[in-house]
Formats: sequence, C-alpha cells, structure tokens
Amino acid sequence: VTTRWKLTIEYDGSGFSGWQRQLKDVSVQEAIETAIAEFSGEAVRLHASGRTDAGVHALAQVAHFDLDRPTTGPVVRDALNYYLRFLPVAILDVAEASPDFHARFSALSRSYRYRILNRKAPAPLEVGRAWHVPKMLDVGAMQTAADLLVGTHDFSTFRAAGCQSNSPLKTLSRIDVRRVGDLVTVETDARSFLYHQVRNMVGSLSLVGTGRWTVDDFAKAFAARTRAAGGPTAPPEGLYFLTTRYSENVTS
Amino acid sequence: VTTRWKLTIEYDGSGFSGWQRQLKDVSVQEAIETAIAEFSGEAVRLHASGRTDAGVHALAQVAHFDLDRPTTGPVVRDALNYYLRFLPVAILDVAEASPDFHARFSALSRSYRYRILNRKAPAPLEVGRAWHVPKMLDVGAMQTAADLLVGTHDFSTFRAAGCQSNSPLKTLSRIDVRRVGDLVTVETDARSFLYHQVRNMVGSLSLVGTGRWTVDDFAKAFAARTRAAGGPTAPPEGLYFLTTRYSENVTS
Repeated sequence: VTTRWKLTIEYDGSGFSGWQRQLKDVSVQEAIETAIAEFSGEAVRLHASGRTDAGVHALAQVAHFDLDRPTTGPVVRDALNYYLRFLPVAILDVAEASPDFHARFSALSRSYRYRILNRKAPAPLEVGRAWHVPKMLDVGAMQTAADLLVGTHDFSTFRAAGCQSNSPLKTLSRIDVRRVGDLVTVETDARSFLYHQVRNMVGSLSLVGTGRWTVDDFAKAFAARTRAAGGPTAPPEGLYFLTTRYSENVTS
Repeated sequence: VTTRWKLTIEYDGSGFSGWQRQLKDVSVQEAIETAIAEFSGEAVRLHASGRTDAGVHALAQVAHFDLDRPTTGPVVRDALNYYLRFLPVAILDVAEASPDFHARFSALSRSYRYRILNRKAPAPLEVGRAWHVPKMLDVGAMQTAADLLVGTHDFSTFRAAGCQSNSPLKTLSRIDVRRVGDLVTVETDARSFLYHQVRNMVGSLSLVGTGRWTVDDFAKAFAARTRAAGGPTAPPEGLYFLTTRYSENVTS
C-alpha cells in the first residue's frame, strides 16, 4: 500500500531557479525528487504548499509525495538529508499524512516574512538574505498603509503578469510591519496569495516608508486595481516562505 | 596634519583568509587598506582591535588608521563602501579619534558570540554562519561548566599552539550560554583572549552539552592547564567578533 508523506523543508533560494521543476537550472522540487528517487528507487511527483521564485527562501515549505516502499518518517528524513547534503536544502521533518492530505489544496493559510535591512551601510552578513534599503523607513506609516490591505480585496495592483489565479480577490488576514534595530520585517498571512503579491505589497509599502508616497497615495494605488499604479517589486532575496497551516485532521 | 580615523566594520569571514594581511589569499585588512588607497591615494596601515581567523565573522570589528588628506567620517565611510562593494565587508561607521587612540591597545574589553545550530536536520540558511551540532545540548550543564571560567585563570587548556600572548593568564568577565529554539549561543567578554580561546572553550563546553563530559570532567580538563586535556576546537564559521569597548575619552 502507498503511504503519503508530508515534508517540512528549509532552503536557501539563492542557488535555485525557484521551487518548480524547469528544463534548465536546478529547482528545489527537482533536487528533492532526485533525492527521493536515489533513496527509494521510486520516481515520485512532489507537490508543494506554494511555489517560490528564484532567490526566495523557505523556513518551512511543506510538500507531499507518495511512496510504495514501507518506511518511517525519521528514516526518510535522514536519507533525504544525506542525498541533499551538498545542496542548500534540508528536510526538517517527515510525517505520515492521511491519503486525502494535499500540501497545496488542504492548506488553510500561508505565511510569509519579508526582511529589509534598513541602514546606510550594506551588510555583508545579510547578502542574499535581505533587501538593503539605505533610506530610513517610517515603520509606523508603513503599518498604517498595510492596515488598508487586511480583509478581502481586489489585489490587482499587487498582481504580477503571468498570475494563474482565477480571480484577483484575496483575503489578507494579517500584515505586521516591525523594526528591530536595523531590520524591518513585514509578516503576512492569507489563505493564498497572487503571483508576486507579497513582493509587490512590500515594494509599495517601501515608498510609504521612505516618504515618496503618503498613505493616501498608497490607498489610491491600491484602489486603482492595476499593476501600473503600484510601486516596484521588492527583490526576491528578502522573502521567506514561513509556514502553512492545515486543519488538525489531515495529518495522522 | 594627520587625522586618526576609527572604523567599525562588519564582514562575512567565509571568503577571507582572516583579518591579517598575508602573501596569498585576500584578508580583510588588505581589502580595506586597498580601498583606503583607492579613495585617498595614501598607503596606510590598518590596526584592528583583534585579529580573526579565516571563516570567522565580525559584526563590529574596530580598526584605526591615519590619513593626511582632510575629510569627514561620512565621506570616508561612503567612499570605502563604494570600493568594497564587491566584497563581503562593509564599513558601518567612521569617526575621528584622538591621536593616542589605538584600536588594539586602547581596548578595555572585547566580546564574542558563538552560534550553534542544535537540531538533527542541517540548516541551509545557516551554512557558514553557525556550527551544526545534531545531538541535543544541555544548555544548563554548559552554563554550569562555563561559570568555572569566569575570573582570572590560567587558560592553557584553551590556548592554541602559535599563541603570541606572553602569559596564559586571562580574565573572563562574562560567559553566557543561551538557547532560543534551535539556536544555542555562547557570548563572552574579556579584556583579551588567547589564540583560539573562544573556539576551544566552546568545543569543550559542547562535550558537556552532549553529556560526553560531566561538569567535573570539564573542571579537571581546565585545571590540567594543557591543551591536550581540552576538547575539540569549534569550527570558525560559528564565531562572531561582536564589539570592543573603549574608555569614553579616547575617541573625540
């Protein structure tokens, strides 16, 4: 009998072409599928909670796959980490899931964190791990603007071309802008996000933070419902896929 | 007239041969001295608060140098960061210092942080930034052992060959072992340290943490006053030079 396995995955997105398998360049999906094949001899398809772009990191990406071979979670985890040992991806946890669990479709909500290094000098220890914004950001103004995004809205202003979602309507349940020293973080939760939505929201919020936009400018751009009215897309290296929340009963 | 400048420096030690200028490989000292020459046309000698080994990082290394050319702190900072832009080193602050200020000899104390990633799975986002110890560490036992190190002692057990200090006697003013989730940190302050002292102390403390040594074993090794009695040297990538404290009146 087939067992469905749920993986929790950390990766440094810098070296990958993103989550999704491509013809050229190494994706996270391909790296892990290859490790599973090396471990089990089975060719499997891995399904992720959410795809990430090139350069975007994950602290707890979730994915599932099915295996015929009987085994245990710790054995799968240690075997995959062995085959992945030269790549910047690690399997944090492997748990048996119920047959109807689906990493993408069973998800109740997803969380992202965006990290901005906000100081004049660059930060060698944050290269590839944060967006360097030298101009001082007004975190209070950013939060005031961000509050406008909470709830169900048409997010077309923050939707990239190529988005495969049927609708631009999304429900943002939380967005928090915080500063700890030189580090400004934006954390946000939603059932799902449009393509580049977090990076586009952060890009526009940064205009409010530096004072180039007032909160009212931000509100007008949001209400315009067109990407052309939005600010820049924040770079991928500041973005971290944090967690996916599932209902209790889909994993065993 | 010559002005003495005090630099505060951050670097990712991974790509460097260490602080000190060498014939082969690029050192942090050489990188910054080259940037100063490119900016000012003056060949200067840079003096650091403390040398760091290859792979060791710094969040606030301090160094000084003298310049004939009249200029200002912000100009020097921005110019050096421009010339250093392709290297993992950044100048956080440049301040005018009094002529008798010396980054090494005026220092009252230095602080280091050692970061241990303590979990079964490796961490792609901590590669080169922490020591990965898969076996669970007992932080309480490590702190009990670490407490034995506070005060003035003969630290020969934690002194590497090649140490240029006249005496193995050093005074440790603080050592704190803390856990936040998977991350165990050891922070320590002293007027000065022996060669590899922090990494050697952490290596021996890790034996207490995993239970291979009791606190009594640690005490005996410390009392033996010979490196042969000590535990392993913790790897450089977990070590961060944090800060140097100076008396108020040496910088203007």
